[in-house]
Amino acid sequence: MLTRIDHVGIACHDLDEAITRYETLFGLTVVSRETNVDQGVHEAMLVVAGQPRAGGSYVQLLQPTGPDSPVGRFLERRGEGIHHIGYGVDDIQAALAHLSRQGQRLIDERPRHGSMGAAIAFLHPKDLGGVLTELVEAPRS
Amino acid sequence: MLTRIDHVGIACHDLDEAITRYETLFGLTVVSRETNVDQGVHEAMLVVAGQPRAGGSYVQLLQPTGPDSPVGRFLERRGEGIHHIGYGVDDIQAALAHLSRQGQRLIDERPRHGSMGAAIAFLHPKDLGGVLTELVEAPRS
Repeated sequence: MLTRIDHVGIACHDLDEAITRYETLFGLTVVSRETNVDQGVHEAMLVVAGQPRAGGSYVQLLQPTGPDSPVGRFLERRGEGIHHIGYGVDDIQAALAHLSRQGQRLIDERPRHGSMGAAIAFLHPKDLGGVLTELVEAPRS
Repeated sequence: MLTRIDHVGIACHDLDEAITRYETLFGLTVVSRETNVDQGVHEAMLVVAGQPRAGGSYVQLLQPTGPDSPVGRFLERRGEGIHHIGYGVDDIQAALAHLSRQGQRLIDERPRHGSMGAAIAFLHPKDLGGVLTELVEAPRS
């Protein structure tokens, strides 16, 4: 069902500073910058391996748009660090149906828009040993 | 410098229970189980994509051998969840030398033995926005 580790989502206070860190230390390149108003984040995707535009593996840096957002509350509670993990899937609808049948609680019952045109859905960390887990279906090229 | 997301390291209280969860929900397969006495962990590697034996992408489940170990203290402090992220590199010695020159503090000045015969080294999370980061050089096949 899972085709790759799509990305690791990292919460930070200052997106520009975090980007510079990953560029300088690891030689990564930003391939996308977006603000996702629904999720309350400014985000940057830096490619680690594979496709530069969707379907590869990325570091996703997340700065909250304000304190009263999921990532803002995460920073308040736990400080900077890894926020979630995202796995690639070929068919997100089929994956969500399978997981739901297995009793996995879904944060997103239906896929929504994610970075770089992907369809994404979050799974509830309470059923996954505290791991906020995201599924990512990359757009067809 | 980074060639792939090698693995996401997840801390859990009960390794067998966590393995069953990833097998049932995501169809993953255990490709390695080891106890690393130095690191104080029982661990399992489940392959997500690529090579079954080193050089692919994995979920690494970590149960501490006791409370007085790095993962044991992590569980005590933060509960179950994502513990660290590991990236593949082709030449870990060269990578550590580069990072050191950039001022990145190294937990491991020299590589040591990791899962499935890899050479690994951890970087200090204080210089990486709270992210415990591991470099992994897979063994030559």
